[in-house]
Amino acid sequence: MTHQTRIEARIAEWSQQLPQGNLYAPMAYLMGLPAKRVRPMLVLMACELFGGKAEDALDEALGIELFHNFTLMHDDIMDAAPLRRGHATVHEKWDVNTAILSGDAMLVKAYQLMGKRPEVAALFSGYALNVCEGQQLDMDFERRDQVALAEYRAMIRLKTAVLLACALRVGAAIAGASVEDNERIGAFGEHLGLAFQLRDDLLDAFGDPARTGKQQGGDLRAGKKTFLLIRGLEVAGAAGRNELRDELAKPAGLRDVHRMLAVLEDLGVRAEAERAVEAGEHSAMQALDALAVEDARKAPLRALAAKLMARSR
Amino acid sequence: MTHQTRIEARIAEWSQQLPQGNLYAPMAYLMGLPAKRVRPMLVLMACELFGGKAEDALDEALGIELFHNFTLMHDDIMDAAPLRRGHATVHEKWDVNTAILSGDAMLVKAYQLMGKRPEVAALFSGYALNVCEGQQLDMDFERRDQVALAEYRAMIRLKTAVLLACALRVGAAIAGASVEDNERIGAFGEHLGLAFQLRDDLLDAFGDPARTGKQQGGDLRAGKKTFLLIRGLEVAGAAGRNELRDELAKPAGLRDVHRMLAVLEDLGVRAEAERAVEAGEHSAMQALDALAVEDARKAPLRALAAKLMARSR
Repeated sequence: MTHQTRIEARIAEWSQQLPQGNLYAPMAYLMGLPAKRVRPMLVLMACELFGGKAEDALDEALGIELFHNFTLMHDDIMDAAPLRRGHATVHEKWDVNTAILSGDAMLVKAYQLMGKRPEVAALFSGYALNVCEGQQLDMDFERRDQVALAEYRAMIRLKTAVLLACALRVGAAIAGASVEDNERIGAFGEHLGLAFQLRDDLLDAFGDPARTGKQQGGDLRAGKKTFLLIRGLEVAGAAGRNELRDELAKPAGLRDVHRMLAVLEDLGVRAEAERAVEAGEHSAMQALDALAVEDARKAPLRALAAKLMARSR
Repeated sequence: MTHQTRIEARIAEWSQQLPQGNLYAPMAYLMGLPAKRVRPMLVLMACELFGGKAEDALDEALGIELFHNFTLMHDDIMDAAPLRRGHATVHEKWDVNTAILSGDAMLVKAYQLMGKRPEVAALFSGYALNVCEGQQLDMDFERRDQVALAEYRAMIRLKTAVLLACALRVGAAIAGASVEDNERIGAFGEHLGLAFQLRDDLLDAFGDPARTGKQQGGDLRAGKKTFLLIRGLEVAGAAGRNELRDELAKPAGLRDVHRMLAVLEDLGVRAEAERAVEAGEHSAMQALDALAVEDARKAPLRALAAKLMARSR
């Protein structure tokens, strides 16, 4: 059985045993939407990498995926998002109160699976707080005029990257990896997660809409402070160019996204972002190389990282 | 040092070490509002009852109080409540998104304290889900025309009573109480919690506003389906009396609360509710009596129960 099959089977089984009612139905709905299941995959792969059995980490793999979906349920309320994975968000399909409460119960459900080993629970709680801190920074940044690049990196590290690190470290802890290797696999996850998120920013701007399934430059049109816009404004300011500021001064619907993209290209910001992605990938691979584990065992994680990095959407 | 002093000191210390920022400030604010701290008291008292040291249960006592305050933070959003303990609710003082996210992080913080012992974590998670289920029923009932008395009792059991049981059982578990005694102390907490909530319903209706600090009959005016209104409508229906229905048909602001109170008194519903409170207290005391613990050690819990039951607000 592949990890993917194992995870999907465990999720389906979990959903079926949920009690009836409005508290649990939204959990089954959200968990049932098609998803890549990257985080539970990382739990199982890290467990096997260090000589553990994937079966022994399956509960925690599900727990991480439940936690991730809990954050999606609540983030979608905060962002007033109508769609998630191409379907209605929970607060749209039910209502805001149901999404708050069902999300709360989903976090408890995640802990039921993460709480069997105190050291895993402690690891998980630390990272769970990081994810909340990242979401808080994201909301804070929306209200601010200026965000520095270092602040943006700190935010995506907390909001996105650390949960990949958490998944890997949980799998490693279950397999009994050494403290050093547990930290190294965490570093691999963080670098990979940062690179993944920056690649996402790049795809939103420069990706092929036919392949990403999203409108090109959606983040730029919305004035969202990603790597590209933050760095673009910095470099443009230093070069005395005002095109980006001029576009941002317009209402979102009237912004000329193609002009913004051309400026970012012209200023070398696209190239800089691509270098940052490559640097992240490189650091991730270095952390993986440093693990005190036979090289052949690292192949599955290398393949997953390559797949994540090569994705067009 | 009294338990009360110990708990307040631990809360103050905990609040002071929180990081800066909008994620943590609402937690310190809510935890800093004056409160009775019944649940953490129960953790410490149950721990001592079974021969443990209160110091050893102080983290879990704080964890239960954090969980309780997390539920208040989110419940207040769902109920659109402007005030909590006489002060602005978190979503009023900050905003809804901050209250959602800070509450989420508060639940994680609670788990950091409850997760040190897997058996305590498992106990806690089960009850935490019960509390969510109770809040869900409460919201479901608001949208329904009719709620049976048994359903109402099931709801307040989940929403209120079980957390008292949880607090006591956590304290008992830390002290190493037997399985039988752990269940008995849980039964004591549940009966006490049910009686406590029914007493609260009675006080809202028949309490002296000068002592409760609340407008008399606020629940009745709002048409809230408490024991009194549910049972009142049942008994009135059987007796062919329409006063309660007539008042409920009016807009909330025009309802004659004193007429409703007189009807409830006249139909014997007030007396019935008082008997239900007494029955709950009696069952609680029976559960306490049955504990395989020297009787003198039970005195502090008996005193706390008496104080809770005699309270005027």
